[in-house]
Amino acid sequence: DFLNALQEIRPAFGASTDDLERCRVNGMTQCGERHEHIYKRAMLLVEQVKVSKGSPLVTCLLEGPSGSGKSALAATIGIDSDFPYVKIISAETMIGLSEGSKCAQIVKVFEDAYKSQLSIIILDDIERLLEYVPIGPRFSNVISQTLMVLLKRLPPKGKNMLVIGTTSEAGFLESVGIRDAFSVSYHVPTLKTEDAKKVLEQLNVFAEEDVDAAAEALNDMPIKKLYMLIEMAAQGEQGGAADNIYSGQEKIRISHFYDCLQDIVRF
Amino acid sequence: DFLNALQEIRPAFGASTDDLERCRVNGMTQCGERHEHIYKRAMLLVEQVKVSKGSPLVTCLLEGPSGSGKSALAATIGIDSDFPYVKIISAETMIGLSEGSKCAQIVKVFEDAYKSQLSIIILDDIERLLEYVPIGPRFSNVISQTLMVLLKRLPPKGKNMLVIGTTSEAGFLESVGIRDAFSVSYHVPTLKTEDAKKVLEQLNVFAEEDVDAAAEALNDMPIKKLYMLIEMAAQGEQGGAADNIYSGQEKIRISHFYDCLQDIVRF
Amino acid sequence: DFLNALQEIRPAFGASTDDLERCRVNGMTQCGERHEHIYKRAMLLVEQVKVSKGSPLVTCLLEGPSGSGKSALAATIGIDSDFPYVKIISAETMIGLSEGSKCAQIVKVFEDAYKSQLSIIILDDIERLLEYVPIGPRFSNVISQTLMVLLKRLPPKGKNMLVIGTTSEAGFLESVGIRDAFSVSYHVPTLKTEDAKKVLEQLNVFAEEDVDAAAEALNDMPIKKLYMLIEMAAQGEQGGAADNIYSGQEKIRISHFYDCLQDIVRF
Amino acid sequence: DFLNALQEIRPAFGASTDDLERCRVNGMTQCGERHEHIYKRAMLLVEQVKVSKGSPLVTCLLEGPSGSGKSALAATIGIDSDFPYVKIISAETMIGLSEGSKCAQIVKVFEDAYKSQLSIIILDDIERLLEYVPIGPRFSNVISQTLMVLLKRLPPKGKNMLVIGTTSEAGFLESVGIRDAFSVSYHVPTLKTEDAKKVLEQLNVFAEEDVDAAAEALNDMPIKKLYMLIEMAAQGEQGGAADNIYSGQEKIRISHFYDCLQDIVRF
Amino acid sequence: DFLNALQEIRPAFGASTDDLERCRVNGMTQCGERHEHIYKRAMLLVEQVKVSKGSPLVTCLLEGPSGSGKSALAATIGIDSDFPYVKIISAETMIGLSEGSKCAQIVKVFEDAYKSQLSIIILDDIERLLEYVPIGPRFSNVISQTLMVLLKRLPPKGKNMLVIGTTSEAGFLESVGIRDAFSVSYHVPTLKTEDAKKVLEQLNVFAEEDVDAAAEALNDMPIKKLYMLIEMAAQGEQGGAADNIYSGQEKIRISHFYDCLQDIVRF
Amino acid sequence: DFLNALQEIRPAFGASTDDLERCRVNGMTQCGERHEHIYKRAMLLVEQVKVSKGSPLVTCLLEGPSGSGKSALAATIGIDSDFPYVKIISAETMIGLSEGSKCAQIVKVFEDAYKSQLSIIILDDIERLLEYVPIGPRFSNVISQTLMVLLKRLPPKGKNMLVIGTTSEAGFLESVGIRDAFSVSYHVPTLKTEDAKKVLEQLNVFAEEDVDAAAEALNDMPIKKLYMLIEMAAQGEQGGAADNIYSGQEKIRISHFYDCLQDIVRF
Ligand SMILES: Nc1ncnc2c1ncn2[C@@H]1O[C@H](COP(=O)(O)OP(=O)(O)OP(=O)(O)O)[C@@H](O)[C@H]1O
Ligand SMILES: Nc1ncnc2c1ncn2[C@@H]1O[C@H](COP(=O)(O)OP(=O)(O)OP(=O)(O)O)[C@@H](O)[C@H]1O
Ligand SMILES: Nc1ncnc2c1ncn2[C@@H]1O[C@H](COP(=O)(O)OP(=O)(O)OP(=O)(O)O)[C@@H](O)[C@H]1O
Ligand SMILES: Nc1ncnc2c1ncn2[C@@H]1O[C@H](COP(=O)(O)OP(=O)(O)OP(=O)(O)O)[C@@H](O)[C@H]1O
Ligand SMILES: Nc1ncnc2c1ncn2[C@@H]1O[C@H](COP(=O)(O)OP(=O)(O)OP(=O)(O)O)[C@@H](O)[C@H]1O
Ligand SMILES: Nc1ncnc2c1ncn2[C@@H]1O[C@H](COP(=O)(O)OP(=O)(O)OP(=O)(O)O)[C@@H](O)[C@H]1O
Ligand SMILES: [Mg+2]
Ligand SMILES: [Mg+2]
Ligand SMILES: [Mg+2]
Ligand SMILES: [Mg+2]
Ligand SMILES: [Mg+2]
Ligand SMILES: [Mg+2]
Repeated sequence: DFLNALQEIRPAFGASTDDLERCRVNGMTQCGERHEHIYKRAMLLVEQVKVSKGSPLVTCLLEGPSGSGKSALAATIGIDSDFPYVKIISAETMIGLSEGSKCAQIVKVFEDAYKSQLSIIILDDIERLLEYVPIGPRFSNVISQTLMVLLKRLPPKGKNMLVIGTTSEAGFLESVGIRDAFSVSYHVPTLKTEDAKKVLEQLNVFAEEDVDAAAEALNDMPIKKLYMLIEMAAQGEQGGAADNIYSGQEKIRISHFYDCLQDIVRF
Repeated sequence: DFLNALQEIRPAFGASTDDLERCRVNGMTQCGERHEHIYKRAMLLVEQVKVSKGSPLVTCLLEGPSGSGKSALAATIGIDSDFPYVKIISAETMIGLSEGSKCAQIVKVFEDAYKSQLSIIILDDIERLLEYVPIGPRFSNVISQTLMVLLKRLPPKGKNMLVIGTTSEAGFLESVGIRDAFSVSYHVPTLKTEDAKKVLEQLNVFAEEDVDAAAEALNDMPIKKLYMLIEMAAQGEQGGAADNIYSGQEKIRISHFYDCLQDIVRF
Repeated sequence: DFLNALQEIRPAFGASTDDLERCRVNGMTQCGERHEHIYKRAMLLVEQVKVSKGSPLVTCLLEGPSGSGKSALAATIGIDSDFPYVKIISAETMIGLSEGSKCAQIVKVFEDAYKSQLSIIILDDIERLLEYVPIGPRFSNVISQTLMVLLKRLPPKGKNMLVIGTTSEAGFLESVGIRDAFSVSYHVPTLKTEDAKKVLEQLNVFAEEDVDAAAEALNDMPIKKLYMLIEMAAQGEQGGAADNIYSGQEKIRISHFYDCLQDIVRF
Repeated sequence: DFLNALQEIRPAFGASTDDLERCRVNGMTQCGERHEHIYKRAMLLVEQVKVSKGSPLVTCLLEGPSGSGKSALAATIGIDSDFPYVKIISAETMIGLSEGSKCAQIVKVFEDAYKSQLSIIILDDIERLLEYVPIGPRFSNVISQTLMVLLKRLPPKGKNMLVIGTTSEAGFLESVGIRDAFSVSYHVPTLKTEDAKKVLEQLNVFAEEDVDAAAEALNDMPIKKLYMLIEMAAQGEQGGAADNIYSGQEKIRISHFYDCLQDIVRF
Repeated sequence: DFLNALQEIRPAFGASTDDLERCRVNGMTQCGERHEHIYKRAMLLVEQVKVSKGSPLVTCLLEGPSGSGKSALAATIGIDSDFPYVKIISAETMIGLSEGSKCAQIVKVFEDAYKSQLSIIILDDIERLLEYVPIGPRFSNVISQTLMVLLKRLPPKGKNMLVIGTTSEAGFLESVGIRDAFSVSYHVPTLKTEDAKKVLEQLNVFAEEDVDAAAEALNDMPIKKLYMLIEMAAQGEQGGAADNIYSGQEKIRISHFYDCLQDIVRF
Repeated sequence: DFLNALQEIRPAFGASTDDLERCRVNGMTQCGERHEHIYKRAMLLVEQVKVSKGSPLVTCLLEGPSGSGKSALAATIGIDSDFPYVKIISAETMIGLSEGSKCAQIVKVFEDAYKSQLSIIILDDIERLLEYVPIGPRFSNVISQTLMVLLKRLPPKGKNMLVIGTTSEAGFLESVGIRDAFSVSYHVPTLKTEDAKKVLEQLNVFAEEDVDAAAEALNDMPIKKLYMLIEMAAQGEQGGAADNIYSGQEKIRISHFYDCLQDIVRF
C-alpha cells in the first residue's frame, strides 16, 4: 500500500517557484541583523553544496517562534540558490492523507531530487508534517522515522543536496531525535523594538511622533503578526480607512492601534 | 478512502441561511454591553476581509461558557455580513461519520469557499468537531491537524475569507495548539445581574416588584439557560399556566421560579 | 458502514409499552416522598413539552445508586405521558453490536421520534450504553459524542421531544461532559427506614412486632434489592415456605431475614 | 460478524453432565463446615428459582483463592439441581477465539437457556473468560459489558434462571463492576488444619501418628493442591511407591512429604 | 482466522529428538549438585505421570538466569523420559507469525499430545513465546491467556501429560499469573566457583596452577557463557591457537582469559 | 502476509561490497588507539568464527555516540573478513515498509546467510531498525522480538556466522533486552584532543600554529562531525575557498573555524 501510494504520485521535476513565492505573501522587508545573519550563513551552505565532494548531503534547521519568518526565509534561500531542483514539502498539500501516503509523497520528492545534480528540499513546519499535538504527546512515528532516515541517507554519487527544515517546536524535535539529525541549526527570532521600528518606517503608516511608541509596543512580536495587526489597525475604528492609510493620506491612530493589539491572540 | 469520501459529498455553494437561523431559536435580544462590543469588533473584521489585499485570511475565535450565546453570535455575524458564501460546519450534521469522512466534509466546505470572492466559515463547537472528551483527554488528532492546516492555508489569489470558530473549551484548544492558530479571540460571557434584568424586562413575565430579585438570582447565568428556566417557570406549579404568562395575563410566581432554579443542571 | 448499519434497522414507530412494562416487574408501590416528588416534577416537564413553542427539546437525567428505581420511574413517566412516541434505548437489545451499530440504532430512534409531534426517548443506563468500565476508565467515545450531539440537536420545527436519561454513574457522566448536556437532573435515592417500613407494610410478610426491626435493618437499601431480599427470606430456612408467606398464612422469621441480609452483595 | 458468529454456533440444549463431572476429577469429599454451608445456601437459591414468580433471575458468585473448590462446588450444585438445562461456560472451550466469537458463544448459551422453564448457567473462572491479566490491567471490555448486561437481563415471562459465577479474582471483578451485578456472593476458603485433617483421614495415606503433623503443615492449603501434593508424595523418594500407598500397604514418609511441599508453587 | 490457521498446520506426531538435541549443543557435563538435584526431582515427576490415575496433568517450571542451562535440562528430561510424544515449543520456529498463528501452533501441539498415552511438552523460553519486552511491559495477552488455559485443561480420560516450561523472567511470569499456573517450580542457578572448577577440569584447557584462579573468576557465571568464553580465550591473542589448546598441546594464558572476560556482555 | 512478504523478496547471495563502501564515504583514517583496539578484537572474533566447531554463532555489538564511526568500523570488518557472505541490514533500504515486511527482509538475509559456510551480517543502527523514538518510548516490538530470536538461533550444522550490531542507543537496547542478547560488546568513543590532532595532521588544512588550538576545540567530537565541520570551514567566510584549502594553497582561518563550530548542532 505504501508502494502503491508511491507509484500513484505524479513525477514532479523542476523548481516550484509559485509555491515558494506563496511563502512570502507580505514580501521580504529588512527586519534586523539577526534575520540577515541567518540568510548569509545559509547562503554559504548553498555555496558549499555547490562545490562539495566530501559532503554530498547538508542539512539545516530553522527554528523559532510561530510567525517569526522561518518559511519565508527558507523559501527565499531556495529561490536565491538558482538550483535546478527546489521543492517545498508542506502539510498544506497533504491534508487528510494517511501516514503511509504522506511518507510516500515525502520519499517521492527525495527520489526526484536525487536525479538532480544540485537540489534543495524544504521540510516546512516539520511538527505539522509529523501531525504533532502536545497532548500525549502524539505524532506520527512512521513519518518521524522516515524523516530521520532521509536526513542521513546520502544521495547517489555525484549528486549534492541541501535540506532545510523549519519548525516552531524545536523542543519536540529534540525529544524525538530529529533535531540532532540536522547538521546545523539557526534560531529565527521575534522582532526587538529596533527591528519593529525599521519595519514600521518602511511601511510608513504611523505619524512620525507615534512610530517610537508603536515600535515599543511591538517588542517581541513575530513579523507575521505585525503584518496582521497593522492591517487591522489600518481599518480604523469605523472601518473603511485602509485605502487612505496605505496611500499615505491618513495615519493610524495610536489609540486604535493599542485596541487592536488586545484582540490579537497570545501576545 | 479520504479521497472517495471527498468526492461523494454533494457540491454546496451559496449561503445556508436556514442553518444559521436555527442557531438563534430564541432570537437576538439585547443582553448587555459586552455582547454588543464583540458583535461590533467582529463586524470590523468582516469589513477588513471585504477590502483587504494583504491578509486574504482572517481567523477569529469566540470562546466562553456553555450557552453564553457564541453560536447565535457567530450566525448573526454570518447573516449580517451579506457575503455570498456563508457556511456553518457543525457536528450535528456529521453524527456517526468516521474521522476521515468528517475531515473530507470540512475540507469540502473550505474548497467550496475558495471559489467565492468573499466567504465566511463558522466552525461551530470546535471541541465537538474534534470529538473531545476530558477523560484522557481523547480527541481526533486527524481532525485537529486538518483544522490547524486549514486555519493557516491562504485562499487562492484574489479570494478573501473569514473563519469564525466557537468553543466552550478554550483551555483544551489552547493545549492542542488550535487556539494560537486563530489571529483574534473574544470571550463571550455569562450574564451579570444587570444584563439579566435587561433581558427580563424585554420578556415581561415577572411582576415589577419581582424583577430585581429574579435578576439577582440569575447572576452569572448563560443566556441559553435563562430561556429554558423561564419556560419551565412559566408552566406554573400545576402546569398549563404558560399561555397566560406569555400573554401577560399572569406573572410567574417568584417562589416557583426559585424551585425551578434548583432543578437546572450545574448552576 | 455506519450508513449501512443505519439502513438495515427496521423502522419502529409507535410506543413500545411492553418494553416499558418490563422495567417495573415488581410494580410501583409507594416508597416515600422523595420518589413521589421526582415523579411530579417530571410530569410537569411532560406538560411543558406538550405546550412549548420556545423549547422544542427538554432533557432530564435521573441519577442514583444501583437499584434505586430509576428505570421503573422513567418507564412510568413514559407510560403516563400518553405521548404517541415513547421508546426506551437500552443496552439489553444491543449486546455484542459494534460501536458503530449501536450509534446507528440510537440515531434511528431519534430520527423516528422527530417524525412524531410529541415524543419521549428513554436512554436507560447510559453508562452501559457507553460500555463504561471504571478501570482506565474505558468507554465508547463514539457513542459518547453521539449522545452529546443528540442531547443538543433541536427536533424539526413543530416537533417537541423529551429525553429522559438514567444512570448510576453520575460522576462518570459528569467527567465526560454528558451530565451538563441535560437541562435538568434529579437524584433518585435509596430507601430510608420510614420508606422501607411503608413498603413492608404494603407487602405484609412480617409479624407486626418485627416490621420496625426489619425496616431499621433495611435503612439505605435500594428498592430493587429489597424485593430480592424479601423473596429469599420468604423461602424459609428449609425452602418451600414462600406460598404460605405470600398468602399470609406464615410470616418471615426475623432471624432468617437477618441471615439472608448477609448474603446480599455489597450491603 | 458478531451476528454471523452467533448463527454458526450449533444449538446445544439439555444439560451437559460430562462437562460438569470433569470439574470434580477428584470427587467430592467432606472438607469442612464452611464448604458445606455454601452448598446448602446455594441449594436454597435453586429452590427459590424453582418456585419464584417475582424474581425470574437469581445470580450468585463463588469467589475464593485458586484451587479452593469453586468449580467443583458449582458443578455439584448444577448436577444436584435436576434442572432440565444446566450448562457450564468455560474458557477451555473457547481457546483462540476472538472477543466477538466468545461473546456470541456466551449469548448463545443464555438464549438457549431462555427456552427452558428452569435453567442454571455456570460462568466458570470469570477472569479467564474476560482474558484478564493483572498487568495494565488488561481484559476484554467487550465480554465484560456483555456479562454485565446478561447478569441483569430478565428471562422471558414464565422462565426462571440461576446464574452461578466462579472467580479467584474477586477484587478485579469488583473493580470492573461485575461483582455488584451478582445478587448474592459466597467466599470459598482454603482448608484450615482441622479441615485438612478430615480429608487426610478419608484418604488414609499417612501413618496414624503422622496425620496431625501433616494436617498442621497443610493449614491454609486449597483442596486442589492438597490432592496434587499427596499424589507426588505417594510416589516415594525413588518413585514407584504409589500403588502400595493407595492400597494401604505402605504409608507416606512424613519427611518426603515435607520435601514435596517445598516444590509446590506458592505455598 | 484462528481456526484456519489451526487447520493449515501439518500434523506432527512422535518425538522430535533432533530439536531436543540442538538444545544441548555443548553436551551435558556435570556442573554441580544443584543442577543434578533438579534433574532427579523432574525425573520423579516423569515417573508420577507414567503411573498416575488421579492427576492426569503435571506442570513444572524451570526458571533461572539467562544461559543457566534450563533448555538443555528440559530437553534432557524429555529425551530420558522415553515417552512416545515429546515436543518442544519454541519461538525459533514461529518468527514473524501473528499472535493468532502462534496460538494455533501451540494449541496444535497440545491437541496432538492428547492423542498419546504419555506425553511431554516443553514450553521453551516462555517470555519469548509471549513476545515479552520489559518496557511497558508489553506482551501478547492472547498467547498468555492461551497458555493459562492449556496449563489447567485436563487431557482426555486415560491420557497423562507433563508440561515443562522454561523462563529467565520468573518475575514477569509471576506478574501475569502464569507462574502460579504451574504446580511445581525449580530454580536453575548460575555456577559457583566449585561448580565452574568441576567443568574446567573436564575441559582441561588451563594449566593446573591456573584452574583455581580461572574458576574463581567464573563465580556466578552461567554455564552457557562459560562455553563461549573458553572458546574465545582458546583463540589466543593472535588467533589460530584453538587447535593446540583443545588437543592439549597448549594451555590458555590466564591473562588473555581475563581480557576476554571483559568483552563478555553483562558479567 | 508475513509469509507472502517473505516470498516476494528477491534472493540475494554474495557480499554487497558497494553498500559496505558507502558506509565510509570519508575513508578510514587513523583516529586513535581506542578505535584500533576495537578493530583488532573484532578481527579476532572473525578468526574464531572461521575455525570454531563449538560456537557456530558469535554476536558482537558496537555502541557509542552518534557519528563516532560505528558503521564505518563494522563495514571495514566485513570487508576485511573476506567471508563469502557479508551483508548490511539498514533502515535506509526499508523506508516506509510495514513492520511485517521489515521482519521478512531481515529474516531473509539470515536465511540466505545460513546457506553460506561463513557469513557476516551487520545490523546497522538497530534503534532505527526498531523504529525507536524516546517519547513513550515507542518501537516495533515485532522487529525487536525477531531480532532477539535471530540473535540466539543457531545456524545449521557446519555453518558459522558472525553478527555485528551498531547502535547509538545502548541504554534503549539494554532496556528491551537486546543488548544482553549479544555475546560481546565494544564502546566506540568520540575523539579526544590527541585523536583529533592526529586526524587534523593527516588532513593538513590548518596552519601549523593553529593545529593545537583546533584539536583542543575538537575534544569530544565524533569523527563524522569533524569531517562535516572541516568542510564548512574550508569554504571560507565568503565561500569559494575550498579548492585552495584542500590543494594546500591556503589554510583555514582559525576564527572562521570557531564560527562554524557554533552552527553545528549539539556540540
Ligand atoms: N525579512 C523577512 N523575513 C521573513 N519574513 C518576512 C520578512 N519580511 C517580511 N516578511 C513576511 O513575514 C511573514 C513571515 O511569515 P512566515 O510564514 O515565514 O513565518 P513562519 O515563522 O514560517 O510562521 P509559522 O510559525 O506560522 O510557520 C511572511 O508573510 C513574509 O512575507
Ligand atoms: N444577544 C444574544 N446573543 C446571543 N444569543 C442570544 C442573544 N439574545 C438571545 N439569544 C438566544 O440565546 C441562545 C444562545 O444559545 P447559543 O446556542 O448561541 O449558545 P452557545 O454559547 O453557542 O451554547 P453552547 O455552548 O451550548 O454551544 C439562542 O437561543 C439565542 O437565540
Ligand atoms: N415507587 C417505585 N419506584 C421505582 N421502582 C419501584 C417502585 N415500587 C416498586 N418498584 C420496583 O422496584 C424495582 C426498581 O428497579 P429499577 O430497575 O427501576 O432500578 P434502577 O435504579 O433502574 O436499577 P439499576 O441501577 O440496576 O438500573 C422495579 O422492579 C420496580 O418494579
Ligand atoms: N468438598 C469439595 N469441594 C470442592 N472440591 C472438592 C471437594 N472434595 C474434593 N474436591 C476436589 O478438589 C478439587 C477442587 O478443584 P476446583 O477446580 O473445583 O477448584 P477451583 O477453586 O475451581 O480452582 P481454580 O481457582 O483453579 O479454578 C476438584 O478436583 C474436586 O474433585
Ligand atoms: N549440566 C548441564 N546442564 C545444562 N546445560 C549444560 C550442562 N552441561 C553443559 N551444558 C551446556 O550448556 C548450555 C546451556 O544452555 P541453555 O540454552 O540450556 O541455557 P538456558 O538457560 O536455556 O539459556 P537461555 O536463558 O538463553 O534460554 C548448553 O549448550 C548445554 O549443552
Ligand atoms: N578510523 C575511522 N573509524 C571510523 N570512521 C572513520 C574513520 N576514519 C574516518 N572515518 C569516517 O568517519 C565517518 C564515520 O561515520 P559513521 O557513519 O561510521 O558513524 P556512526 O557512528 O555509524 O554514526 P551514526 O551514529 O550516525 O550511525 C565515516 O564517514 C568514515 O568514512
Ligand atoms: Mg512557517
Ligand atoms: Mg454553540
Ligand atoms: Mg435501571
Ligand atoms: Mg475453577
Ligand atoms: Mg533456553
Ligand atoms: Mg551508523
